[in-house]
Amino acid sequence: MHIKKRKKETVLQELIAIITSNASDQEIREKLDDYHENDIAEALENLGEVERKRLYHIIGIEKVSEIFTFLDDVGMYLEELGPQKAAGIIENMDADDAVDALDEVDSVMRDQLIQYMTKEAKEDIELIRSYDENEIGSQMTTNYIEIGRDLSIRQAMKTLIEQAEENDNISTIYVKDDSDKFYGAIDLKDLICARDYVELESLISTSYPYVRAHEKIDDCIERLKDYAEDSIPVLDDADTLLGVITSQNIVEVVDDEMGEDYAKLAGLTAEEDLNETLLESMKKRLPWLVALLALGMFVSSVVGMFESVVSQIALIVSFQSLILDMAGNVGTQSLAVTIRVLMDERLTMKDKVELVWKEIRVGFTNGFILGILSFLCVGVYIYLLKGKTPIYAFSISGCVAVALIVAMTISSFVGTIIPMFFHKIKIDPAVASGPLITTVNDLVAVITYYGVAWLLLINVLQLT
Amino acid sequence: MHIKKRKKETVLQELIAIITSNASDQEIREKLDDYHENDIAEALENLGEVERKRLYHIIGIEKVSEIFTFLDDVGMYLEELGPQKAAGIIENMDADDAVDALDEVDSVMRDQLIQYMTKEAKEDIELIRSYDENEIGSQMTTNYIEIGRDLSIRQAMKTLIEQAEENDNISTIYVKDDSDKFYGAIDLKDLICARDYVELESLISTSYPYVRAHEKIDDCIERLKDYAEDSIPVLDDADTLLGVITSQNIVEVVDDEMGEDYAKLAGLTAEEDLNETLLESMKKRLPWLVALLALGMFVSSVVGMFESVVSQIALIVSFQSLILDMAGNVGTQSLAVTIRVLMDERLTMKDKVELVWKEIRVGFTNGFILGILSFLCVGVYIYLLKGKTPIYAFSISGCVAVALIVAMTISSFVGTIIPMFFHKIKIDPAVASGPLITTVNDLVAVITYYGVAWLLLINVLQLT
Repeated sequence: MHIKKRKKETVLQELIAIITSNASDQEIREKLDDYHENDIAEALENLGEVERKRLYHIIGIEKVSEIFTFLDDVGMYLEELGPQKAAGIIENMDADDAVDALDEVDSVMRDQLIQYMTKEAKEDIELIRSYDENEIGSQMTTNYIEIGRDLSIRQAMKTLIEQAEENDNISTIYVKDDSDKFYGAIDLKDLICARDYVELESLISTSYPYVRAHEKIDDCIERLKDYAEDSIPVLDDADTLLGVITSQNIVEVVDDEMGEDYAKLAGLTAEEDLNETLLESMKKRLPWLVALLALGMFVSSVVGMFESVVSQIALIVSFQSLILDMAGNVGTQSLAVTIRVLMDERLTMKDKVELVWKEIRVGFTNGFILGILSFLCVGVYIYLLKGKTPIYAFSISGCVAVALIVAMTISSFVGTIIPMFFHKIKIDPAVASGPLITTVNDLVAVITYYGVAWLLLINVLQLT
Repeated sequence: MHIKKRKKETVLQELIAIITSNASDQEIREKLDDYHENDIAEALENLGEVERKRLYHIIGIEKVSEIFTFLDDVGMYLEELGPQKAAGIIENMDADDAVDALDEVDSVMRDQLIQYMTKEAKEDIELIRSYDENEIGSQMTTNYIEIGRDLSIRQAMKTLIEQAEENDNISTIYVKDDSDKFYGAIDLKDLICARDYVELESLISTSYPYVRAHEKIDDCIERLKDYAEDSIPVLDDADTLLGVITSQNIVEVVDDEMGEDYAKLAGLTAEEDLNETLLESMKKRLPWLVALLALGMFVSSVVGMFESVVSQIALIVSFQSLILDMAGNVGTQSLAVTIRVLMDERLTMKDKVELVWKEIRVGFTNGFILGILSFLCVGVYIYLLKGKTPIYAFSISGCVAVALIVAMTISSFVGTIIPMFFHKIKIDPAVASGPLITTVNDLVAVITYYGVAWLLLINVLQLT
């Protein structure tokens, strides 16, 4: 079925036609009002510098500021304007967007830009920048509506309208008490629908959820998602409202956090994008690889101890990769499941024990099924293609099967317990677990496999 | 530093104390009004059935509906109430939450519940359920405000207040034209701040972004994130407004999509959670493992071809795991980077070629560094601990180094090109790439390593 999508290209062409037309400034301004800033930002990327500057002039600084928050390489467009104009644009952004924009220019330009800004904008930006990037305060915006608790409905509505000129996030109105501490929140819908004679107090949720600015993002992100609110207040330790986390902020944080976890599971120290240089990419990957190389050499020295087994029955080497890969695979599966489960803050000790026990059973059951499969397949393969006796063939495939079952069971256990351990000692399990699990599983698999082979094939059956 | 967090337990205890107190119904109702529904939902899980039912009676069906959308095991609580009452609760939910709740009960109960619902609620639910789970229509809510385009500001505000009783998502107001087609959107802020004499038309963004209900989530999720709006309209092919995607919906979708990709990268067919049975978990993992076992056997048979090399120099087997693991690791790194980059819809052919070229260079450079490291370490290890001559030791470590460089370069290439291929033929690259890449990389690594060993050690240096 053909789906009629919104033609991105059509919108883009319309926009470029409007911007480059000979219409009057006012006409252009009015037409552009109908389009989304994200679309205009994309059009901007398709214009020349002269056309862009003409456009900025037509639509005015506030609209330019909004559009600039949607640009992919905002740094480039800011530099094109010079520090004074650029500072004006950043000043008009929400403080969190301003912080993001400042991150896109070099440090010299950044200092210049901050100098040109009003005291108020500077303070907001410095507040957000004062938090570490893994603290929720670094993600908040200072764009919110705050009113006193002793207003009437009509006064509250009037104050809202005044503040709405400057602040976009109006769907929740925050209320402070007489000593400027956070008191509660009002749903805009309730305020709009309220009759004039109702007490404002009756609309305020005084036990509204909040987060502390210094809380780790990891610690509060699940809570932020659970409340499913348009905005959640961020307080300092003295209960003063500093900013809010909007649902757009949550989208960004979820996206970033998951992206990071995902990257870490794949053995990258951080997420990469298309525009990074070779050196940047190498920096993100090499630490992992060096660690894995060192651990891999340790595994190799253990394999080296079985040199005599290998030299007597060279055929068994063929199946080493099979057993190591399978152990690695089930270990990674358990790791991924455990990392996701550990995100839940409400997890009890009992849940953890249950998870470990379940993973062991899953590992054993899957190992058992795959063990039987490989006992048959490997045996038939050796018998038919390698021309050995059935006893010889099924002795070797028996070793493979036993090693698979043992290695997969232990790998599942290791893949669950190691991330739990790192989580307990407050080290990010997604980063630390990977190499350790790989190594432990390799060791378990190698020792099981060659151990069983040595015991069964050489000592018991004497198949040399 | 100690961070003063919001004590979840305190809130929970307060709530339980209020609910189980002897206060009058009205007092309890008023007190509970101050708390977030998510917190009340958690309290609910800590009450007995009798207390719960008493609470439902006190707070009324609308509040109960809201609270139920925050329950983890909503199915259990619905079943406790019997179909008629449960249907009433679901009816009052947003249609998307109602669909989620219905998914939590068994199919018999589900059919009963749907029977008891009003025609309107039934239609909304059936509309959302009519979309496939990977279509964006399945994620929308029918809870939105829609007005005609020829109203005055005052009339628009009045219509908004009327509809707001039923619909929570008021921050964007949708406008339809005379033939009931989607016409544009108004930011609530603009409506609230507008003077009475302004034309409504001037507030309407007529080129507001939208998605089509049948669009694949994968295809539009990046766009939805980019627009960073509180809600984006969902249209059918005749331009009629069917529902909206709120930023909460986007949070859920992003979370789900990333979770799925993450699970797939780890070799699970879908994300798992704590409450799944052994059988469900096995079903998600076994297909992958069986596929990997089959491919692993193929690799084993290739290793088997080098039996004669192995039997002559058993020591080289020790480093097989090292090379296979490292090839696997860089392949996974490239895979993860490529999958994330492919999410960008605006990717050009040139970007793709650049990515492949970059990955090859990263793979080669990292391989070169690790190759030199292992040439030295492995050589010294064999010389000192295995008591071989320096020439013998560094011949073997030379093989390891060459194989590492070649295998890591090719693995980076394979790890980039395979997901691109699957993306091109519209198969989810995260699902399909894993096993194929593992196998190809294992084969490359094995053939390179034993090939070099056979050529260099046995044929040239004759080190048997």
